[in-house]
Amino acid sequence: MPFTAPASVLTVMAHPDDAELWAGGTLARCSASGAAVTIAVPRHTEPGRDTEAAAGAAILGATLYQYDQPTVARVRELLIAVRPEVVITHPLRDVHAEHRALAETLVAALPGVVIATGHPRRVYTADSYNSLALDGAIPAHTVIDITDTYEQKQRALGAHPSQPITDHFGPMAETLARLWGGRIGVRHAENFVPLPILGRLPAALTI
Amino acid sequence: MPFTAPASVLTVMAHPDDAELWAGGTLARCSASGAAVTIAVPRHTEPGRDTEAAAGAAILGATLYQYDQPTVARVRELLIAVRPEVVITHPLRDVHAEHRALAETLVAALPGVVIATGHPRRVYTADSYNSLALDGAIPAHTVIDITDTYEQKQRALGAHPSQPITDHFGPMAETLARLWGGRIGVRHAENFVPLPILGRLPAALTI
Amino acid sequence: MPFTAPASVLTVMAHPDDAELWAGGTLARCSASGAAVTIAVPRHTEPGRDTEAAAGAAILGATLYQYDQPTVARVRELLIAVRPEVVITHPLRDVHAEHRALAETLVAALPGVVIATGHPRRVYTADSYNSLALDGAIPAHTVIDITDTYEQKQRALGAHPSQPITDHFGPMAETLARLWGGRIGVRHAENFVPLPILGRLPAALTI
Amino acid sequence: MPFTAPASVLTVMAHPDDAELWAGGTLARCSASGAAVTIAVPRHTEPGRDTEAAAGAAILGATLYQYDQPTVARVRELLIAVRPEVVITHPLRDVHAEHRALAETLVAALPGVVIATGHPRRVYTADSYNSLALDGAIPAHTVIDITDTYEQKQRALGAHPSQPITDHFGPMAETLARLWGGRIGVRHAENFVPLPILGRLPAALTI
Amino acid sequence: MPFTAPASVLTVMAHPDDAELWAGGTLARCSASGAAVTIAVPRHTEPGRDTEAAAGAAILGATLYQYDQPTVARVRELLIAVRPEVVITHPLRDVHAEHRALAETLVAALPGVVIATGHPRRVYTADSYNSLALDGAIPAHTVIDITDTYEQKQRALGAHPSQPITDHFGPMAETLARLWGGRIGVRHAENFVPLPILGRLPAALTI
Amino acid sequence: MPFTAPASVLTVMAHPDDAELWAGGTLARCSASGAAVTIAVPRHTEPGRDTEAAAGAAILGATLYQYDQPTVARVRELLIAVRPEVVITHPLRDVHAEHRALAETLVAALPGVVIATGHPRRVYTADSYNSLALDGAIPAHTVIDITDTYEQKQRALGAHPSQPITDHFGPMAETLARLWGGRIGVRHAENFVPLPILGRLPAALTI
Repeated sequence: MPFTAPASVLTVMAHPDDAELWAGGTLARCSASGAAVTIAVPRHTEPGRDTEAAAGAAILGATLYQYDQPTVARVRELLIAVRPEVVITHPLRDVHAEHRALAETLVAALPGVVIATGHPRRVYTADSYNSLALDGAIPAHTVIDITDTYEQKQRALGAHPSQPITDHFGPMAETLARLWGGRIGVRHAENFVPLPILGRLPAALTI
Repeated sequence: MPFTAPASVLTVMAHPDDAELWAGGTLARCSASGAAVTIAVPRHTEPGRDTEAAAGAAILGATLYQYDQPTVARVRELLIAVRPEVVITHPLRDVHAEHRALAETLVAALPGVVIATGHPRRVYTADSYNSLALDGAIPAHTVIDITDTYEQKQRALGAHPSQPITDHFGPMAETLARLWGGRIGVRHAENFVPLPILGRLPAALTI
Repeated sequence: MPFTAPASVLTVMAHPDDAELWAGGTLARCSASGAAVTIAVPRHTEPGRDTEAAAGAAILGATLYQYDQPTVARVRELLIAVRPEVVITHPLRDVHAEHRALAETLVAALPGVVIATGHPRRVYTADSYNSLALDGAIPAHTVIDITDTYEQKQRALGAHPSQPITDHFGPMAETLARLWGGRIGVRHAENFVPLPILGRLPAALTI
Repeated sequence: MPFTAPASVLTVMAHPDDAELWAGGTLARCSASGAAVTIAVPRHTEPGRDTEAAAGAAILGATLYQYDQPTVARVRELLIAVRPEVVITHPLRDVHAEHRALAETLVAALPGVVIATGHPRRVYTADSYNSLALDGAIPAHTVIDITDTYEQKQRALGAHPSQPITDHFGPMAETLARLWGGRIGVRHAENFVPLPILGRLPAALTI
Repeated sequence: MPFTAPASVLTVMAHPDDAELWAGGTLARCSASGAAVTIAVPRHTEPGRDTEAAAGAAILGATLYQYDQPTVARVRELLIAVRPEVVITHPLRDVHAEHRALAETLVAALPGVVIATGHPRRVYTADSYNSLALDGAIPAHTVIDITDTYEQKQRALGAHPSQPITDHFGPMAETLARLWGGRIGVRHAENFVPLPILGRLPAALTI
Repeated sequence: MPFTAPASVLTVMAHPDDAELWAGGTLARCSASGAAVTIAVPRHTEPGRDTEAAAGAAILGATLYQYDQPTVARVRELLIAVRPEVVITHPLRDVHAEHRALAETLVAALPGVVIATGHPRRVYTADSYNSLALDGAIPAHTVIDITDTYEQKQRALGAHPSQPITDHFGPMAETLARLWGGRIGVRHAENFVPLPILGRLPAALTI
């Protein structure tokens, strides 16, 4: 069945390589299908990380949006500025405390923005290290076929040479892409779990 | 976003009014969108129930398929004969023992048929009494907007006058349709949960 | 079986209409049965909200207790001043960040107060938007029949005309009251989930 | 708060000592409060077990109801004959296969009987070995204070000398009674989890 | 830390290649460490499958034990004959109905055998298709490093040429071995979940 | 099977008696087996509590490490100074807010320290009041036989006379030790649940 890209997608994650690692294949698939894709990242203290982020975003066909501190007020501004149809963030029970903190910040900003602007329409959390959260394995929900953009995802990851891509994140991304791919019968996939916004979840487009 | 109907849908449920009650709005929406919809029901011992089943199916735009005993062999034949893209059944932990038994029978028949024919592609369980299963509330997953076919669903339910529709099932169907509708921001909806077939789940069509 | 009201109930929730929306029928039933009911709400910045809160509380037969900032110290004072048998708050995994924050504040204040005063004896969380929390559907636990006080609940909600009651909260409250009502076989009900206080849960009064 | 005994309680469990072990304190408390308590047990092949069952039931103030094979038809007859307000059985995911089988048989018999007779009104599952089921620890729900009937429970257990009471079941019953007691702040307690009957759960008598 | 092999391990699974696929690396590691490893498989109707089973078992250093029908009585005999320290079977909520049936049969046989013989001491369920069970992702518990025996596992799988090893099971086994390996920081691993026997779980050997 | 002590264990808990209460038997068993055991506690405001902590630690064969405020920076220093193989903390969903806060602080400090030093290798959460967390009963995972060190644990608890040991914590510790003991078939035990560190869990030493 055909993939329907949303009009726009925004990732709100903690580090310069997170969007590539946890959602890169889906972002590339969205931008290839015409979606406006924005990767928002707090500016990093280590020199070079921001340049890597720009390179990674370019490979995925995404716009990089850098900002200073991920406060609730700042994330609210971000959401109002980008007005995305879809937002992707980290699991609320992610094993990494900075991931959890950013997801909490986003979730705190959401109700007010949604009431004021009607956007985003849908919010998802992405995968995490070895597909484990603090309360167990990440559940399968919205599994996106990324077979056609998997190489692009790995190239975007490769744009972060300051990180342990070759040893760690590249192989882990391969394992997770194969795992989720196997779960929907394709070569490579990524998984996302919807987060209720004031009690609302995404409607299904088919059964 | 637009609804994409599958080519064909088959319900494998226990009683003559189950398809109407748990999936009627979605079946009507599928048939209105061009899907071949089949409602399979074991022949009932009470006179009149089969006639009601035929009337209900007609209102939903579905073909009624009646058979004798829901054995694994018989359900296998059914699946091979209909070759549906999608199958809908009861929750495996349904509160009604006959619902559970039929779902178990279907699940026992599935692997062999899928390996032999490649169909069905996707299997879902539907809702149950007051959206409760034996292990708790039915989780939200694939929530289908049935606002446009809700009246059709209630009419199809009304085709079962031997059952306590006015007092019980009609109001319960209304409450559940409103509950799921509220959860995706529309007036009425129905919820379905995918069942893995040999480890495979449905791929998402969008994010 | 007969309803036994506690001697006193205190709601510790985030906004002026929360007590009405999530527990209004039960509060009215408690006050009608002789319980001292107190609704504690942080003072609101929008003019008029506090007046609405007073009107809503009056309709439910409750005393309104307004305070400034919901800090741990302030909630501790509140608990010591009211010394309630039962406290009701939001789910700890509520979809609304301000609900979560207030519930966390209460939970932080509880152990010290309980050790010092022996009160409250029981703590419950109430329902949330479309009965969904961040980790899924709210589980059924202590389901209270509010058939006799349902109209009172809707009138108390109606005392908040600054809020989207007619379009949103009123119909949602109706759907949830019907859902929980159906789950215990009455017309309307509300659901509460006990929260352990230092490892202690409410004892059951019957089986 | 005062304990309100139901008019009648029936246990439907697998072995002659199960009612004593998993619900003995509550049964004694119910019968002391005026409830008609019936313990139904399939006749046992080992000589002496039935005599032990009679002795145990007598200590708890219960009537022993012995029957041959726990088939669905036979359990249906039992339910119609006793017409209990409350039924207690084993967890559906009990670690003991014979416990699971009996609970499944009961659950299969229930819907028809409830539709026909309106009884039982409530169904609960009891505790199991070390409070573990196949899917994890038994969740706390309806925790009954049995401090006053704990000695009676241990004596009823002692009426089964063919079983390893002194070494095994007696100490385990003590540990579980202390565990559940601690969880509601009394010396000894027993825990029960309601099972939905056609989507209906027990209403709460207080909050 | 050093691996401590049990004295003996028995797999009780449904098909000739199941032991290899779901536990092959661990079985090889156990037999290499001196454990007596037995693979029990019901005789298969397809010619050649039994020969493949023998070849697979040989590669893993295991004894093949073939029997006719997996009835409770037959599995009881098997357990008494082998008297294993550890038994491994399928998940009780496996996606494959024949896997579930065999696991249920084993679980029904266990209590009597354990009471009579004291063996097995520990029972585990293994992984399943894409690490999904009917109720979600298989939880991490006892994760065994199989880096040193991973090639042996793949060779044992290769001893089943009648099955879709190259296309399906080989790559899936690789993905799962990498997934579990990543979760404990080694190259390849397998995961097992303990099943309580009459309320008893394995004790931990370290923290 | 033999117990293998880690080289070193560090508890990072909130109050002077927490290590004794939730992990005392395991700490004593570790130190008796040659592990370097450190109990880290924030200095307490009440006079005498620190002296009690020193006495309790001595009875368990542990070194007491006192520090001022449990900030992320301070816990990071602690982890780097002690460089433990194993860390034990409170459940992240502990019923006590100060327990949760300390566990969150530890979890926030972990990723950076583990990336920098490779230690700790494993992190566990311990038990809590009546074995209940905010989201239900604590699940069984790594259950350690403490039969030989149970008396030592109770004596170490007794070194905190400012606390309600005789009435409360002593009996609760006995009940929990019996519960976990029963679950692995010994007299007394303690339970621990591993926490993933950047997606990594402990490898199993046996099956």
